[in-house]
Amino acid sequence: MTSDDYGELENRWKRISSLSGAISLLSWDSQTIMPSGAGDVRAEQIATLSVLRHEEITSNLIADLLAKIDPEVLTDWQRANVREIERVYKNATALSTEIVDSHSRARHNCESIWRIARKDSNFDLVADPLGELLEITKEIAAIKADKFNMQPYDALLDEYEPGAKSENLDATFNYLEPKLIQLLKNVLEHQAKTEYASIPFQVTEEKQKKLGLKLMEQQGFNFQKGRLDKSAHPFSGGIPDDVRITTRYDEQDWASSLMGVIHETGHALYEQGLPIEWRGQPVGKARGMVLHESQSLALEMQACRSREFFEFLAPVIADEFDVSGKEWSASALYQKCLRITPNFIRVDADELTYPLHVILRYRLEQSLLSGELSIKDLPAAWNDMFMKSFGFRPTNDSDGCLQDIHWYDGAFGYFPTYTLGAMAAAQLFSAALEDEPKILTKLEKGDFSDLLDWLREHVHSWGSYYSTDEIIKRATGFPLDPSFYISHLKSRYMQ
Amino acid sequence: MTSDDYGELENRWKRISSLSGAISLLSWDSQTIMPSGAGDVRAEQIATLSVLRHEEITSNLIADLLAKIDPEVLTDWQRANVREIERVYKNATALSTEIVDSHSRARHNCESIWRIARKDSNFDLVADPLGELLEITKEIAAIKADKFNMQPYDALLDEYEPGAKSENLDATFNYLEPKLIQLLKNVLEHQAKTEYASIPFQVTEEKQKKLGLKLMEQQGFNFQKGRLDKSAHPFSGGIPDDVRITTRYDEQDWASSLMGVIHETGHALYEQGLPIEWRGQPVGKARGMVLHESQSLALEMQACRSREFFEFLAPVIADEFDVSGKEWSASALYQKCLRITPNFIRVDADELTYPLHVILRYRLEQSLLSGELSIKDLPAAWNDMFMKSFGFRPTNDSDGCLQDIHWYDGAFGYFPTYTLGAMAAAQLFSAALEDEPKILTKLEKGDFSDLLDWLREHVHSWGSYYSTDEIIKRATGFPLDPSFYISHLKSRYMQ
Repeated sequence: MTSDDYGELENRWKRISSLSGAISLLSWDSQTIMPSGAGDVRAEQIATLSVLRHEEITSNLIADLLAKIDPEVLTDWQRANVREIERVYKNATALSTEIVDSHSRARHNCESIWRIARKDSNFDLVADPLGELLEITKEIAAIKADKFNMQPYDALLDEYEPGAKSENLDATFNYLEPKLIQLLKNVLEHQAKTEYASIPFQVTEEKQKKLGLKLMEQQGFNFQKGRLDKSAHPFSGGIPDDVRITTRYDEQDWASSLMGVIHETGHALYEQGLPIEWRGQPVGKARGMVLHESQSLALEMQACRSREFFEFLAPVIADEFDVSGKEWSASALYQKCLRITPNFIRVDADELTYPLHVILRYRLEQSLLSGELSIKDLPAAWNDMFMKSFGFRPTNDSDGCLQDIHWYDGAFGYFPTYTLGAMAAAQLFSAALEDEPKILTKLEKGDFSDLLDWLREHVHSWGSYYSTDEIIKRATGFPLDPSFYISHLKSRYMQ
Repeated sequence: MTSDDYGELENRWKRISSLSGAISLLSWDSQTIMPSGAGDVRAEQIATLSVLRHEEITSNLIADLLAKIDPEVLTDWQRANVREIERVYKNATALSTEIVDSHSRARHNCESIWRIARKDSNFDLVADPLGELLEITKEIAAIKADKFNMQPYDALLDEYEPGAKSENLDATFNYLEPKLIQLLKNVLEHQAKTEYASIPFQVTEEKQKKLGLKLMEQQGFNFQKGRLDKSAHPFSGGIPDDVRITTRYDEQDWASSLMGVIHETGHALYEQGLPIEWRGQPVGKARGMVLHESQSLALEMQACRSREFFEFLAPVIADEFDVSGKEWSASALYQKCLRITPNFIRVDADELTYPLHVILRYRLEQSLLSGELSIKDLPAAWNDMFMKSFGFRPTNDSDGCLQDIHWYDGAFGYFPTYTLGAMAAAQLFSAALEDEPKILTKLEKGDFSDLLDWLREHVHSWGSYYSTDEIIKRATGFPLDPSFYISHLKSRYMQ
């Protein structure tokens, strides 16, 4: 490969990257502001663009250029870029255009129906579309498992977190689960001895939004390259130069939307901090979902649930909401936001019970994919397993297996990355504090710059140059290790 | 061609249609809500999708399928669809991928800079990008003129209004111009004798938006398949199942945003009324810009500036704006909204002076394209010509040659369709009243159903089955004729 061939490969990839960016915007729009009657035609558009992208990635031109590789003439970053292009190429050529197309259509169809099913808490409505989507997913997993000589489940997981293995997940989750259940028991006992100020207070959507925007700015979100909107399920979409984050507002529960905005801002800061000179190339993209989640949780759970941050937050809230009194003091708000309250809903979960929600989903999706569990038995299986972990039982499927978009959008293998991300967040934050002890005192003033600088330097700016494991090891000195997470939970909740 | 070949052609065209729909949304987004720093990457996306669409249209597969045509086995609509596909194919194969790509980039670049230039009233800023865009446009015109044996200007015009000829435009404009200038003189004298109630009144953006939405609903806009947003320059975008119209709000001038919404709703009703069984096929698309503009003006200028409609509108305004008094009566509002006030800005122009704005642009763009006029001389040439038509002179370029997006977005040959559309609106509305005399009395109650039914039957439902001329002739009994427009103006303004 001459450097001209490499240049052509990069140029060609820009087309693919533009298609991905377009798909991302079409999808964002459909989840935020699209009129309800446009669903079918939007599904067609997204399916068509996905097929075109697939055709571009798997074209002979890419194969020919890759075949000419002479790594000697390339820089280290260029070599890493070629490695990532090869990875994407191999994954894409594993699948036919037809199956990519069917998958995209089945996802969109199932997701649209899920929106109604969830609202009506009517699982039957979405059972068939989900079954159809599951069958295509199994087919994709089987094809990839065969080609890459891996477990079918790992083939799905790999799409969100390249290189991740269910073998390691099993070990991690088997380590975490009993410790979390024991810790939950201890924390609930500990909490029972505490008196909590009640803060019954309605906050209008408008005020919540204004506070959210203020905190986004404080954290370093670049509004020239992104925006905040509303959607049924908060998410972070778009591309590094146009990051679209969303939240939902509950006028009875301002803290939930606020923390949601902070969480998605963490995702956005990662995207906005990716190496700008590698825009549109695979090596310039976020490494995977584990690091992505680690960035949202480093902000939401590590930085913004620290006692120090509440010193800054309390007066801002008093000002924005026009409230006063000791129930709005830093310590009262800290107590309120840090309370552990086991709950049906994953997205509202605290950091102690969250991994239990994930482990439940991990086990259920493995059973669905292996065929041990059939779709029609999913609601009951969910409720049984929930009962076992939490000690109480969902009374409707909107609080159970209909609550999350992910399966209905085809994202099997995605859930475990949440907990790996939480572990990585604890480990990275602990390393950041060791390197920059001033981080916490600066948070007292709402100053995120030292933390953001550290994350930019150790995580964001590396894009996909290293593997997730290497990035974590270089940043913290250790491979990803669940004991950091357990230590964090103990020191925060059992002090 | 067997009917299987035909089916394959239709299927293939769905991909092209999905690409067009995606481009349309990306463009809508960039004009309404996109963060400012995302301009470059969005331009890349739109350029890439435009290239892909061009590649799809010009692919051998389309050529092969078209070559196999046996019109005998097709229905009339299928034959018309093949005719339209051939037209698009021939237009697209006239141009190389490279020039399509450069054109898209030059348009986007020029348009982004125009946004700043217009704000600062600084033509120099955008002169070079406009020059570059003009050169590519001339190249495109020359290539098409040569291939299709037509005038270069007509090759551009053809893109907005298939089959239109500058020869006819010259005749029409030469007929209209002196009549309009004389009529303007008479009307201004006539108005000088009238006393006008002054209605100095600020209306918040929120109230204006609420009223706009109410009127959209009244007119028959389907909110399941479209939405209203804000942009610097009002436009109608999207696709028939997801029509995106925009307006801008001036708190000092509620009538302008209101009429803007009504105008764009007219465009939207045309799109929403196109034959649903031909979605995604060329024969199912709007015929061209002349009929499109005729539909917006049939609503805005013909129906909603009638005395009858103001009988409905006045109490609605009193209610929505919470106002009362005789200056808010139907007759006072009618007088206010019908006042002829020659003005620098085309989009704010009344229906009498509007064609004069268009004729000015038509003559200037012809000079630019022929090379008689250079870019650097455009501002002065504009101001001189404006002085000649209107009797006063713009004092800055934001009120002159920087006011409209169209040239800066590459839409040379587009302006004349506004006036042809206004003529068609007058002619169609007059025919509708002859067929359904109740239309006007129903407008007194805000009931648009008879008018909409007539337009659906005689215009919308035909898509691109007939030519513009045929649609107008079948609907009204006559070919497009400027005398209907002059009669309309005389009867409205000289009574």
